[in-house]
Amino acid sequence: MTTFGESHGEALGCVLDGFPAGMKLSEKDIQPYLNRRRPGTRSVSTKRTEEDKVEILSGVFQGVTTGAPIAMIIRNKGANSKDYDALKHTYRPGHADYTFDAKYAIRDYRGGGRSSGRETAARVCAGAVCMKLLKEMGIDVYAYTVSIGDTIVNPDRFDRKLILKTETCMPDKVADAEAKSAIAAAAKLKDSLGGVIACAMENVPAGLGDPVFEKLDASLTKAVMSIGAAKAVEIGRGIYGAFMDGAAFNDAFVEEDGEIKKVTNNAGGILGGISDGDTILLRAFFKPTPSIAMPQKSVNDKGKNTSLTIKGRHDPVIVPRAVVVVESMCAFTLLDALLLNMSAKASNVKTFYARPNS
Amino acid sequence: MTTFGESHGEALGCVLDGFPAGMKLSEKDIQPYLNRRRPGTRSVSTKRTEEDKVEILSGVFQGVTTGAPIAMIIRNKGANSKDYDALKHTYRPGHADYTFDAKYAIRDYRGGGRSSGRETAARVCAGAVCMKLLKEMGIDVYAYTVSIGDTIVNPDRFDRKLILKTETCMPDKVADAEAKSAIAAAAKLKDSLGGVIACAMENVPAGLGDPVFEKLDASLTKAVMSIGAAKAVEIGRGIYGAFMDGAAFNDAFVEEDGEIKKVTNNAGGILGGISDGDTILLRAFFKPTPSIAMPQKSVNDKGKNTSLTIKGRHDPVIVPRAVVVVESMCAFTLLDALLLNMSAKASNVKTFYARPNS
Amino acid sequence: MTTFGESHGEALGCVLDGFPAGMKLSEKDIQPYLNRRRPGTRSVSTKRTEEDKVEILSGVFQGVTTGAPIAMIIRNKGANSKDYDALKHTYRPGHADYTFDAKYAIRDYRGGGRSSGRETAARVCAGAVCMKLLKEMGIDVYAYTVSIGDTIVNPDRFDRKLILKTETCMPDKVADAEAKSAIAAAAKLKDSLGGVIACAMENVPAGLGDPVFEKLDASLTKAVMSIGAAKAVEIGRGIYGAFMDGAAFNDAFVEEDGEIKKVTNNAGGILGGISDGDTILLRAFFKPTPSIAMPQKSVNDKGKNTSLTIKGRHDPVIVPRAVVVVESMCAFTLLDALLLNMSAKASNVKTFYARPNS
Amino acid sequence: MTTFGESHGEALGCVLDGFPAGMKLSEKDIQPYLNRRRPGTRSVSTKRTEEDKVEILSGVFQGVTTGAPIAMIIRNKGANSKDYDALKHTYRPGHADYTFDAKYAIRDYRGGGRSSGRETAARVCAGAVCMKLLKEMGIDVYAYTVSIGDTIVNPDRFDRKLILKTETCMPDKVADAEAKSAIAAAAKLKDSLGGVIACAMENVPAGLGDPVFEKLDASLTKAVMSIGAAKAVEIGRGIYGAFMDGAAFNDAFVEEDGEIKKVTNNAGGILGGISDGDTILLRAFFKPTPSIAMPQKSVNDKGKNTSLTIKGRHDPVIVPRAVVVVESMCAFTLLDALLLNMSAKASNVKTFYARPNS
Repeated sequence: MTTFGESHGEALGCVLDGFPAGMKLSEKDIQPYLNRRRPGTRSVSTKRTEEDKVEILSGVFQGVTTGAPIAMIIRNKGANSKDYDALKHTYRPGHADYTFDAKYAIRDYRGGGRSSGRETAARVCAGAVCMKLLKEMGIDVYAYTVSIGDTIVNPDRFDRKLILKTETCMPDKVADAEAKSAIAAAAKLKDSLGGVIACAMENVPAGLGDPVFEKLDASLTKAVMSIGAAKAVEIGRGIYGAFMDGAAFNDAFVEEDGEIKKVTNNAGGILGGISDGDTILLRAFFKPTPSIAMPQKSVNDKGKNTSLTIKGRHDPVIVPRAVVVVESMCAFTLLDALLLNMSAKASNVKTFYARPNS
Repeated sequence: MTTFGESHGEALGCVLDGFPAGMKLSEKDIQPYLNRRRPGTRSVSTKRTEEDKVEILSGVFQGVTTGAPIAMIIRNKGANSKDYDALKHTYRPGHADYTFDAKYAIRDYRGGGRSSGRETAARVCAGAVCMKLLKEMGIDVYAYTVSIGDTIVNPDRFDRKLILKTETCMPDKVADAEAKSAIAAAAKLKDSLGGVIACAMENVPAGLGDPVFEKLDASLTKAVMSIGAAKAVEIGRGIYGAFMDGAAFNDAFVEEDGEIKKVTNNAGGILGGISDGDTILLRAFFKPTPSIAMPQKSVNDKGKNTSLTIKGRHDPVIVPRAVVVVESMCAFTLLDALLLNMSAKASNVKTFYARPNS
Repeated sequence: MTTFGESHGEALGCVLDGFPAGMKLSEKDIQPYLNRRRPGTRSVSTKRTEEDKVEILSGVFQGVTTGAPIAMIIRNKGANSKDYDALKHTYRPGHADYTFDAKYAIRDYRGGGRSSGRETAARVCAGAVCMKLLKEMGIDVYAYTVSIGDTIVNPDRFDRKLILKTETCMPDKVADAEAKSAIAAAAKLKDSLGGVIACAMENVPAGLGDPVFEKLDASLTKAVMSIGAAKAVEIGRGIYGAFMDGAAFNDAFVEEDGEIKKVTNNAGGILGGISDGDTILLRAFFKPTPSIAMPQKSVNDKGKNTSLTIKGRHDPVIVPRAVVVVESMCAFTLLDALLLNMSAKASNVKTFYARPNS
Repeated sequence: MTTFGESHGEALGCVLDGFPAGMKLSEKDIQPYLNRRRPGTRSVSTKRTEEDKVEILSGVFQGVTTGAPIAMIIRNKGANSKDYDALKHTYRPGHADYTFDAKYAIRDYRGGGRSSGRETAARVCAGAVCMKLLKEMGIDVYAYTVSIGDTIVNPDRFDRKLILKTETCMPDKVADAEAKSAIAAAAKLKDSLGGVIACAMENVPAGLGDPVFEKLDASLTKAVMSIGAAKAVEIGRGIYGAFMDGAAFNDAFVEEDGEIKKVTNNAGGILGGISDGDTILLRAFFKPTPSIAMPQKSVNDKGKNTSLTIKGRHDPVIVPRAVVVVESMCAFTLLDALLLNMSAKASNVKTFYARPNS
């Protein structure tokens, strides 16, 4: 996957190379995912209105993928660059303004440029394509909000159907209501909130991932940490597990209806970097939106102290819109591991090429 | 970096390609790092005695790196494979035995084979080489134990000199003593403990890392998550930050003696995936050692229920030996980002090639 | 570099990632290169008229590269897919129709789809961007036609200015005239011709390329062989050299005005995979255009014998339009090697990061 | 594949990562290939005697590949570095001495260091492993000498069995005898010869390779051009084809016993970068050995004119020993394309993961 584009540039886009040929695909398969990420659709998010309409430029012929690179673009339409003129020479705290200048000595200051959250729209396009093939294989990947600020979903009230219905993407109506109040309160204070997103991957075949550097958990973690505001990731019971003892953390194996199962899933579906057939569970920790409306201390690009007040349209919490991005990155990484795993066994390679018309 | 080798195979090794020419290097630069990881040197770790003596096979001429791949090997000597005969057909909980069989349908069952912690010795060799160049550039990378079981280092007692002196690698004598008691208690119960390791990277130039998929935090996280027992990673105040509000989390910029500094460092030295010149701080969460001496429920490779008791020499806690591995992976990733960043600006590229004899 | 797009799809495009920040760039820098490749501009080529107008979608801000991926697209406008309906089920000899079906079981049969020569327009966009930076560094890359059919340029009449003036891109007016006659004759016979293209790279610094797998000649050769109709490549006097003796082939070194020079350049500017500072010379051999208007024997996708007559607009010779593609691929590969070489010496790495504001 | 090691260093070696699990493998499978490359076994080659005994360090358990990286090393034993002391400060024409100094400012001058032909022994180890799996799949890869100096094999006398029997690796006794005389004559004159090597790949499934940058011919060409003395490569009738017309060059398709065949094979088994099921034919052009015993003009590393006479043990022709290296690089590249191609079709991916115990 390659993505390109800036927040206020001509267009955002994505090229997905190496995707298998022969899967039905149209813009209609992608748009619903983009809509989940789209600004302006929730009371809890920015008022910038972007249609976020995807156009497939290549790799699909008569509604079917051809094996050629699938290029998809989204034109930027709602960009209002004037809001950013004031930020041309000032480094916003928590943003990449300063580091971009340090690295490149030039910076598209409009809407965060390349480091804008809008860049993730391109990833969602790729994710939607991968999700479709995973679904056709019976693999189920879904992300949801676990917490926003101090409000945490109650597992006893978990209702998957709510993920796509609540504005917070929480699978829990009570938590959703509480979180919305907290967001409104933060917005009133010109402040912002962070949160936690979980992604579950169910019915994943055992055997995906490599034993050392390309461990499946390492790849998934990198994929998710590459999302702008993500600052920590755990697999299974990764954080709390560091404080447990081995007898409690180890997941005992057990035979169940002729299949090998685990009694618990502290490992989060990955052992030694390779999927074990159990649900893969990942949690990503998102920092509060750095764009807050209250005045902040900062420096300008001459290195002088100044203060700034960020205008423009910003989310008091980014988490609900990031849910589909986490899902997309996990779907992409999982499919990649699936394709690579096909050549793990010499016997499978031989069988594959022994088939006529393979 | 490429590594190879199994726990009880002929040798472990590592090939480091693309390392710059002209740095002095000998086995003496590497051995101290390996000794920090070596089993048998601590009361708290396995009694398998391995000399872990590294041999440089290539890439160094007359004591100086040549730009050619640096290959280093460590012969396995203390392997006692008989301990593992009983495990030939049984899947140890928490280990990669089952997933290796699922993926490859063959498995070197001796000492965990490729998924053994011994594999990390090869990474430490590469890390030591990278550390040397980083040090020559004034960059300071050091990891240490933050917690073992419930025992957490007290930041007020932080004493860096202790890292290389305490058996737990804790920079705090009191916590070290407590942790050793806890480890001894766990060992007596035939149980094991996990823990948390921090890695600080000081004096890193601003500008390292890429804005999207190759964010420096994403790369560091993947590098550390590829260590066997690591199950979660955070950058800066990554986990707690998800529960903070933006006003508190944002690090204000301030001018200090003509330089741009941050008042706080919740971001952990990375903004938008690019280093900001501040200390990079990463924390890795390690699960308790899965090899515990008490009887455990499991299945065999016929899918039948069984129980097993793991014999052999195992660490009741892996954390102290993993400290130098975390340090190595961070050093390697950091140097890689440093080298790649040299071509970020067209003006630098032109200056570089304008110099005579460049 | 990533490219995408099919001959008769929505658009062709290219994403150039890792390009240094700070170089002035606009569509005007790219269009002249595209025009050199454009169909319909020469008496010797296809009559399909494509504007081939490039649009930069990202990576450029206020006329300057930002370090972010540079995405460029070209909309397909002159596509006339009806010409290809007859080829839907028949495999054209010399084309990739059969192999695409074998690999993907689906094929965009319109204009060759992904394997169309039109795909190279996207490469020319990337090449033009690379050429600009190379030029600013004083490096001169230019390709030209050496032969078409039996007509070979006479080195004694070599006139570089003619390359951009003659319809054949030959730097020799006499040969150009002869070649045009030969092309006209072939077209009349509903046949086609092949030819040879040379690319010279002058003023390249010594030291580019890696000693083993990433030898500069290996990379250049792969880049050029990835152009559809290229079937052979030589570096320097590569082919004839296999029949020479060592005393004649070896290029003696000599000191000249304080610089190290070679008396001859049979090596073509590359020794041991690394540039030696002399002109790099590469020659690529292109097969005759496979699309010929005369009837040909073939099979259909049911495996039955048939015959076909290709309609549509085809070049009786592809060579003149491929010249700028060869140039582009060489420029891209050279720049890549230039950027990678910056970290070859530890002393340079240290100097780079020791500079303030590096 | 990663290789490491210098001509006169401790050892040469190779790490082959991603090789499928479950293939029987021992040193005995590799040694015969190394013996074909070994110096000192032919009247026509250098008298340096190296045992070239390979040791497998990892990736094989109980005689079977495990999917883990296969590391193989060869200790250097016959190195006689004193021969090279005279060359410490002088650049040998045709060698990489000067370019290594330009790139790295340090150079292992003993036996060419990293740029020595000995480096290819490591590639032969990897090639032998790949050859074994290809053979088990019924794919037949074999290289042979086509010409040495002016002596060219007569296709009418082609006898494959002779390849492993003649000292020149020519499949033609008459040419072999002539070539040996020519080599002896060149050696007497303290001169050297070049030559051409062909590699045929038979029974390759259609569909291998990618349509654009990773074309199978581009990959094969790069792999072969990365061999030190190779200076040109053609696929099929690549060179002569540039002078043919389309009607003659195009290979007509025809149905034969229910299969799709080509009447001729000018394309060399690859169409549009993808294998067409026909024999893949590649020819590589090798320059004459640059190490010649006669005095040569050169410069030293102070840039002063000097002359040098190369001592040591050198091949008057490298071609016979390079045959197995070409074969190895082709086998490696082909297997890589085979493994990658398994995920080209969505239907195959689904079938693969639908199988129980896949």
